Amino acid sequence: MTWVGREVRVRRYPAGPVAPGDFEVVEIEVPDPAPGQVLVRNTWTSVDPGLRLRLRPDAPAGYFAAFPLGQAMDGVMALGEVVESRAPGFAPGDIVSHAQGWREYAVVDPAAIQLGGVGTLTRLDVGDAEVSWFLGPLGGMGLTAYAGLHVVDALRGGETVWVSAAAGAVGSLVAQIAKLCGHRVIASAGSDEKVAWLREDLGVEAFNYRDGDLGAQLQDLAPEGIDVYFDSVGGDHLEAALDHLNRSGRVAMCGSISEYESESKGPRNLFLTVSKDLTLRGFRGSSNLHLREEMQDRLAAWLRSGELVHRESVFAGLESAPRALAEMIAGRTIGKTLVSIG
Amino acid sequence: MTWVGREVRVRRYPAGPVAPGDFEVVEIEVPDPAPGQVLVRNTWTSVDPGLRLRLRPDAPAGYFAAFPLGQAMDGVMALGEVVESRAPGFAPGDIVSHAQGWREYAVVDPAAIQLGGVGTLTRLDVGDAEVSWFLGPLGGMGLTAYAGLHVVDALRGGETVWVSAAAGAVGSLVAQIAKLCGHRVIASAGSDEKVAWLREDLGVEAFNYRDGDLGAQLQDLAPEGIDVYFDSVGGDHLEAALDHLNRSGRVAMCGSISEYESESKGPRNLFLTVSKDLTLRGFRGSSNLHLREEMQDRLAAWLRSGELVHRESVFAGLESAPRALAEMIAGRTIGKTLVSIG
Repeated sequence: MTWVGREVRVRRYPAGPVAPGDFEVVEIEVPDPAPGQVLVRNTWTSVDPGLRLRLRPDAPAGYFAAFPLGQAMDGVMALGEVVESRAPGFAPGDIVSHAQGWREYAVVDPAAIQLGGVGTLTRLDVGDAEVSWFLGPLGGMGLTAYAGLHVVDALRGGETVWVSAAAGAVGSLVAQIAKLCGHRVIASAGSDEKVAWLREDLGVEAFNYRDGDLGAQLQDLAPEGIDVYFDSVGGDHLEAALDHLNRSGRVAMCGSISEYESESKGPRNLFLTVSKDLTLRGFRGSSNLHLREEMQDRLAAWLRSGELVHRESVFAGLESAPRALAEMIAGRTIGKTLVSIG
Repeated sequence: MTWVGREVRVRRYPAGPVAPGDFEVVEIEVPDPAPGQVLVRNTWTSVDPGLRLRLRPDAPAGYFAAFPLGQAMDGVMALGEVVESRAPGFAPGDIVSHAQGWREYAVVDPAAIQLGGVGTLTRLDVGDAEVSWFLGPLGGMGLTAYAGLHVVDALRGGETVWVSAAAGAVGSLVAQIAKLCGHRVIASAGSDEKVAWLREDLGVEAFNYRDGDLGAQLQDLAPEGIDVYFDSVGGDHLEAALDHLNRSGRVAMCGSISEYESESKGPRNLFLTVSKDLTLRGFRGSSNLHLREEMQDRLAAWLRSGELVHRESVFAGLESAPRALAEMIAGRTIGKTLVSIG
């Protein structure tokens, strides 16, 4: 049987803010799965800040290779249903996650290790969860949030934790996990709507970083200083954190979205790392796969009990994926940004 | 009995490179020690890169407070002999270390915790060591070198370690300790004379960072990348390290002498910390006092066996201290820079 489906391709690397015109949506005839491969009909695909980094010809080292122009974008998380399997262990009807998103049909090789293991084809035991949660709290977002707190020894509670981009997919999980672990959490975001959500639905202290001097706002909320900073923003946020961290403070370095569309300048006060015995710990979720089961058990329990709130910004139809990315990077989505397909 | 001695005072904070004219040497009548105090005749005083940071009105937070103008400079390491004691546990003739250097006589309170404990008045058991080693390998320099390797889990060997400012007091110890621990050591310094010393006397691979592109030289010496970088330089050195560190690499952040006389810009490639799971670990020797005894035991044994080489650049007479500092920061001294007094 021949399937026809659409896929998104990168037409050009944007010079400034990403725009839908940087992409094109192309209909193709889906190749038949070869022996050992699985054909998946995608139902959800992920929209992540890190994608922006891969829309640069100078994408940084590590696994962030640039997306090739004019091809389907490999290495983007998706969920779907197996429609044809020529691989042992997978059967039509299976719900799976994999890393060939931003397309309607994907031919996936289960033996290929994708995104450091996070994106390798995996059959999901959805149970009473929502499927889409496997792109959010029970998937890479949950692992990134949980691993970030783990690597800076912040799963034990009792400290003051500042979470930036706290209304985002990872940040909103970090803020809640940190609170559930017993920390005092200060959350920041870039709109009053987000701040209201953080305060009212997530129950954490929060401020709008656009409301005035970042350092002054931090100082007001945490005059005793902060112990841990979860950085998804970089730039002025990281500088403010270095200024306000207490001795032996730690930074979980997850990303620096403020710099993905411009040149990075680097914090001018990095010497405080020496004078205050600070640790800056870069990490990726995929480097912490050993935590995935523990994370899923704990987060699933918190989701069931209602202690963990999950919010999604859903865009309908594959063709909306580029717009979803642009909206997310511009700070106009809340929670996990997703595209529903088909 | 009344003692008369000289002390160095800061006249002004230098705008650019430090110069002897930024200081004045003043003769004073030394106050009598009060009950509980000890009068010490200094014989050696230390010249450290960190002093330059304290000659800035905007000295960074932590213990790096600026030296007040027109006063003796507290918080500078010295060695000396007790000449009068009104404190239990100290007697005339005792050899001591303390933190009131850059003067000929010091009135010291043994109860005062100085420089995070490193500079608190301590009676030394010199044994068969040279006294001056207690300002070098058996003192704060040894502790800083050893603690830096400890906090990035590099006392076990088997990796590739890049040591910057490797002909300096701390760097030359780091390079040798790392080698004795079983690492492959790549050392960098800023003159051919230093590089020759590193190669011939310390037995490590070395390069002159002024000889060409830093990254290209690193790439030549360590095409497989480096695992640990010991940073005393900052600036372009830290950027080159971030470029060349392998996944899960670590940086022991000890200082950034390249930026002490200018404005810090911060590394432009800090995002590599995220993409390569790097850890940047700021530290101070004084935060690791629990390692002092272990460090002294190991380094004393290596000094006795001749496996650890110690070199000093000695300036004679208190009045030479400002010049010694200027020479050291300009990169024209090798090993530990010291001033002999009296």
